[in-house]
Order: sequence, then C-alpha cells, then structure tokens
Amino acid sequence: MYEVATRKERLTIITTILTSNPNHLYSLSYFSELFGSAKSTLSEDIAIIKESLKKYGKGELEVLMGAGGGVRYLPINNADDYDTLAAELTRKLSNPNRILPGGFIYTADIFYNPYYVDKMSKALWSNFSKTNPDFIITAEAKGIPLAMGVAKLFDKPLVVARRESKVTEGSVVTINYVSGTSRRIQTMSLSKRSVSEGQKTIIIDDFIAGGGTVRAIFEMMKEFQITVFGCGCAIATKEPERKRIENYKSLFTLEKIEEETQTISIKPNF
Amino acid sequence: MYEVATRKERLTIITTILTSNPNHLYSLSYFSELFGSAKSTLSEDIAIIKESLKKYGKGELEVLMGAGGGVRYLPINNADDYDTLAAELTRKLSNPNRILPGGFIYTADIFYNPYYVDKMSKALWSNFSKTNPDFIITAEAKGIPLAMGVAKLFDKPLVVARRESKVTEGSVVTINYVSGTSRRIQTMSLSKRSVSEGQKTIIIDDFIAGGGTVRAIFEMMKEFQITVFGCGCAIATKEPERKRIENYKSLFTLEKIEEETQTISIKPNF
Repeated sequence: MYEVATRKERLTIITTILTSNPNHLYSLSYFSELFGSAKSTLSEDIAIIKESLKKYGKGELEVLMGAGGGVRYLPINNADDYDTLAAELTRKLSNPNRILPGGFIYTADIFYNPYYVDKMSKALWSNFSKTNPDFIITAEAKGIPLAMGVAKLFDKPLVVARRESKVTEGSVVTINYVSGTSRRIQTMSLSKRSVSEGQKTIIIDDFIAGGGTVRAIFEMMKEFQITVFGCGCAIATKEPERKRIENYKSLFTLEKIEEETQTISIKPNF
Repeated sequence: MYEVATRKERLTIITTILTSNPNHLYSLSYFSELFGSAKSTLSEDIAIIKESLKKYGKGELEVLMGAGGGVRYLPINNADDYDTLAAELTRKLSNPNRILPGGFIYTADIFYNPYYVDKMSKALWSNFSKTNPDFIITAEAKGIPLAMGVAKLFDKPLVVARRESKVTEGSVVTINYVSGTSRRIQTMSLSKRSVSEGQKTIIIDDFIAGGGTVRAIFEMMKEFQITVFGCGCAIATKEPERKRIENYKSLFTLEKIEEETQTISIKPNF
C-alpha cells in the first residue's frame, strides 16, 4: 500500500494506534502488513515506544510472546498525575457553590467533562486492571460517561441498567429495590439480550451514598448468573458507614456537606 | 526533570499527548519544558508527526503560529476508514434480530460499545469541525456516550438535559413538549448552572424519528439565548420525512423496519 515506512513514521503511527486503543492486542503481523517492515524491526520500534512511555509516565506497553501474542497499551499513569488530579478535583469539589438545597452536591459539570472523566476512568481502571471483565455495567444516567470511559480502557462494551424499561430495550428483567438514601421503592430494568450467563463484570457508578443502586445492580447480576469482580465509583459518602454494598473502591470520600455553614469536606483516596 | 530527550522519545510522547487530546492546543513552550529541547527542534518533530499521520490517514496536526499559538490534533479519518465503518455498521444494524415488537430497533449494544462510539463520534464531529461550540448538548440516556465522544473531540464539556428534574441538578428550567412518535407529552429539564447566555452549542443524539426531543432541546436553547450551530445523530428514520427539526446530519437513514417480514433497511450517509 505504501513504500516501506521509516522509523520516524512507524514510531508515530504505532504510538497513535496503541495509545488510542488501550488494552487492545495488536499482533506484530498487523503492523508488519501496515508498514511492509520485518517483525524484528517492529520489535525494536515497540521497545523504543515502551521505554519512552515509561520514562515519561504516559503508560506501559505489554508485549505478549508467541502465537496469539502481540502488544497492547496499558494506560497506567504515574503517581504524579494521580496526585495532580486528586488535588485539582478536591479543590473543585470543595467549592461551597456546589451545595444544593437539601445538602446535595452538584457534580454534573465534572461527570460530563471529558477531561475529568478520562482521568477518573484511568484512576478507577487501575484498581481493577488485573481483572478481565466481559463488560462494565452502570445505571443511568450520570455514571454513564465514567463507566464508558472505564469500558474503553478495558476494550470492552458497557451495559446500562435503566430506571424505567423502554420499548427499545426488548425483553427485560426488572427488579424493585429500596433506595439507600430516599428509602423509596425504585425499579431497575436490564435488557435480557445485553448480557449472557457466566459472564464477568465490574460495576461503575458516579456516586455511592446508601449503596442501594449498586446493590440492585449486584442482585441483578446474580439473577443473570454473572460474576461481579468489584465495584468502583468516583465519590462515596462517609455516612452511612454501613452501605448496602461492601468492598467498593471510591476515588473520593465526601466526609461532610453542610448547608447551614456552607462547607464541603471531601478527601481523595488515590 | 529528565535529561534532554532523544528524537525517538519526543516523537512517541508528543504523539501520545496530541492524539489523546484532540483539539487541545499545546504551546511549543509546553513541550520545550517537558523535554528541555529547543523550539526549532520541536518544530521539526511536529512536522515529522504531521506528515506521518497524514500519510497513514490517522488525523492531522494544525500548527498555529505566533503568540498564543501552538499545535493541536484534528481527528480527521481518511475516507477508507469511514467506508469501512459505514459498511460494518450497515451490516450489523441490518440484522433482523434487532427488530423489537412494535417495529423498534435494538441498538444499545452499538451505542454503548466504545469501539463504535469512538468511530461514530469522529464521523459526526467531522460534519461540524469548522464550528467552535462552547459545549455539546444531548438528552439522556442512550445518546450520552456518542455526545460525550463528540464533546471530547471538540475538547469541550457535555451538557445533558434530563427527562425528569433531579434534586442533584439544582435550579432547573423545565419545558413540556409532544414526542414526535408517541404523541405523548414529555418533560425536559436543564440545570440553570450548566449553561450561560450567549454560548454556542451543537445538539447530538443517538436517534431521530419525529424529532420531538431534538426540537425540545432546540427550544430550550432559545430560552437560554444560546446559538445552535447544528444537530447531528447516528440514525434518523426516513419516515416521517417532515420532522420537527430541519437541517440535521445523520450518519444512517433507517429506511424501513418491518416486523411481519423481519426486514430492516438502513443506509449510510457518510
């Protein structure tokens, strides 16, 4: 298709392909066909990229040997990047302007901002990077971008449980549950065709207070005989300490939010 | 921080940073500090990356000269990539297994799959790449990943209008509208603090049938005195031909869906 590529071209294009598709395994043959280069040459390119990424804390390349082998990009940030994110978001989330009537916190600007969602997704992914889920699951709506971000990092699809069943979901399984905070009965539906028995998943949500929603997803997964590796969220409240779900990872703990004194206290956990 | 970087390192790291952050402008000073390299050297690096990306159809670099200048990545695919995507999704979407009772089409597996969402986002973005919106807007829930994908390509936030107002949105503006297909009265709410008067936006949604939802977002934007540059969706139905919104871009036209004969006819427009 092209004349044989130069090293500079190969470094640029291999880097673009790998870093744009985290966790996706590319065989050396794929690059060999793309560039008309020998595999030994490509192995050198990949070693250079691997070293450079590592040196600058921009992620890692994992090289798998043998038949079925290849190379893939793991979006592992360096500790400095996580510290910067934690400090930046702590400052933003602690702004008393976020306090809403009833002692709620406004977060939509953060959970719909690609800049923060990308970075939070990486931080959440890193908690589960040794697992191999078949899909990521969340409940609509505010957790969707974050869960989608994590799904992309796993190179796997997202599945979304809905608050009300829609005709465009096809046949669904529905469960009722009691919301942890409002104590109201809520409904959650999942399209039957979106998952299969025996699959494995990770639950991701934006916010955990009582843990009712996440618990409902967990129970739903039991119905479908799906293994849940774990549960991650961006923000979990300190109170109630006993939540309806155990063993969740949260990037931040919302320790206190007070309307009267207009104070928010939030702490990073990463 | 590091010893002066080699060209190989710089090519890898500059490529990673630029392609991971489409449309984000990076000054040469930023890279100069990162690598301890002269700007003339960095200009050469950027020229090499620009040529390589162009040659392999992996996007373009735009170099802006002078004070306030810098370089940014434009995720412009080559025509072949769009053709491949159009063919692949046409085949997938035409599968009669997708037909749901009532003549609806099941698409959740596609709109929640990062692989397809990334590619569709680029195709939609390319229709509006000459505009400079302050944010992208959609209505919950299935359009959120696609709209978030487009928002990321513009390096701008997403705003999500909700079907029911939530306490966590703060003060909202609510409008009622008639759904184009179900003819039922629906409600849409938008948090007041999510947008400001005088801003500019693009509406993105997964699916347009009657156009009622998109029209409602459009009316909502008028309330806030926000300019709408345009409207884009992944799939629009052929019927009704007269929709409640004019001048929308759709990646696919759903020409026919018939429960009795189990046929779907869908055509790409890109």
